[in-house]
Amino acid sequence: MIENTKFNAAILIIGNEILSGRTQDTNTSTLATWLNSLGVKVGEVRVIPDVEETIVSSVNLLRKNYNYVFTSGGIGPTHDDITSESVSKAFNLPYEKHEEGYKILEAYYKSGEFNDGRQKMIWMPRGANLILNPTSGAPGFYVENVFVLPGVPSILKSMLGGIKNKIVGGNPIISHTISLRTFESHIADSLTDVQNKYQDVEIGSYPFFQAGKLGVSIVMRSDDQNLINKCSSDVMSFVNDKKIEVVERD
Amino acid sequence: MIENTKFNAAILIIGNEILSGRTQDTNTSTLATWLNSLGVKVGEVRVIPDVEETIVSSVNLLRKNYNYVFTSGGIGPTHDDITSESVSKAFNLPYEKHEEGYKILEAYYKSGEFNDGRQKMIWMPRGANLILNPTSGAPGFYVENVFVLPGVPSILKSMLGGIKNKIVGGNPIISHTISLRTFESHIADSLTDVQNKYQDVEIGSYPFFQAGKLGVSIVMRSDDQNLINKCSSDVMSFVNDKKIEVVERD
Repeated sequence: MIENTKFNAAILIIGNEILSGRTQDTNTSTLATWLNSLGVKVGEVRVIPDVEETIVSSVNLLRKNYNYVFTSGGIGPTHDDITSESVSKAFNLPYEKHEEGYKILEAYYKSGEFNDGRQKMIWMPRGANLILNPTSGAPGFYVENVFVLPGVPSILKSMLGGIKNKIVGGNPIISHTISLRTFESHIADSLTDVQNKYQDVEIGSYPFFQAGKLGVSIVMRSDDQNLINKCSSDVMSFVNDKKIEVVERD
Repeated sequence: MIENTKFNAAILIIGNEILSGRTQDTNTSTLATWLNSLGVKVGEVRVIPDVEETIVSSVNLLRKNYNYVFTSGGIGPTHDDITSESVSKAFNLPYEKHEEGYKILEAYYKSGEFNDGRQKMIWMPRGANLILNPTSGAPGFYVENVFVLPGVPSILKSMLGGIKNKIVGGNPIISHTISLRTFESHIADSLTDVQNKYQDVEIGSYPFFQAGKLGVSIVMRSDDQNLINKCSSDVMSFVNDKKIEVVERD
């Protein structure tokens, strides 16, 4: 078993706008890349609607099955923002005004602008730890292993720095990609041999179209640079034997 | 209860490349938009790794809970393509060469090019119904209410036309968006009143940043145009009262 499987996380994207197809989720990719750099592997992503029962049951299932859970969306001031209250219910904690959060927003807004809608944004589970928001004031929070973040991608991104030291992970998960001008079927058997030899490297094969030409990217992932080097070398060996053009390596 | 909740679907994105953050999933948005046009609402999306046990249990759970399940990814010729075999196991069906699929690919490839790797692509659950692939030959398939599609977005997209008449849905789910130059907290109470009045319209409120300026998009969704019109009119009524600038309507 490789180091990176020791620490895992689930991502819970909360919001009808993703399920309707209106909005393209980009937070999964942001969170996964960031977690990999901290040595945490994402085991599962779920996208669910703004429905309390669904949020409560999903949070409770995932927080038991994974080291960390990251939620995105539903912590704004409008009627469809029910994540904070739902997470309170999941943990059986009172949902109430967070004193420290209140002070932060009171200082953030001009006098008279800290209205009821905005005050809703600092209602949280009792005892929640704040996640500071350097972009737009309203904080996220975490309770035990569940980190509650906003849905707006640029705001979510700006808040990750503040929780980096709360995440215990393994060695960073690194990846190496070799992109080839070939077809998957032409390399399938050779690649199976390499995968069988390096059980601890996760090897993926992904067809791509680029400038009207077909190709295949071979992606190797592990927390062990040495293992990736050896595995890449074996891939390059059959690539050279088969006289396949290498389009890119990164 | 609105018509559109009668028919629902789950989307199962299968692939380590999404969970690692390397690849941005776009198939959810494609499938959801298409399903909405057929009067089918997406209730849930899951992204899972290329792990047989996880694919089998997810397919079996989702096919019981939803009218339709759409999977994406893992039906190519390489070692990490295990979706077809896993779906066979989920249905307790033999995993075997599909005769009709074999003939299609035999005709598609030049003589001598229909190698073992490519033949793997027409191994399917016994009795599977083919989903034709106008882009790159290799078909997808469906068994009962589970539709198995490839991960490459352009290929997946090109295959939807062929299964349109297999999907029984309700009235198309339509949406109307009113984008405003305001803050969510400024309209939260008024919007709650509108949502309470129109329980059968799904109303979402989404902050956006555009050309350096903040705004809020109000999205109304329903399968009833008349209801959307009434609801929009109520939204516009408080927008005018509050003298909020309308940035866009569509």
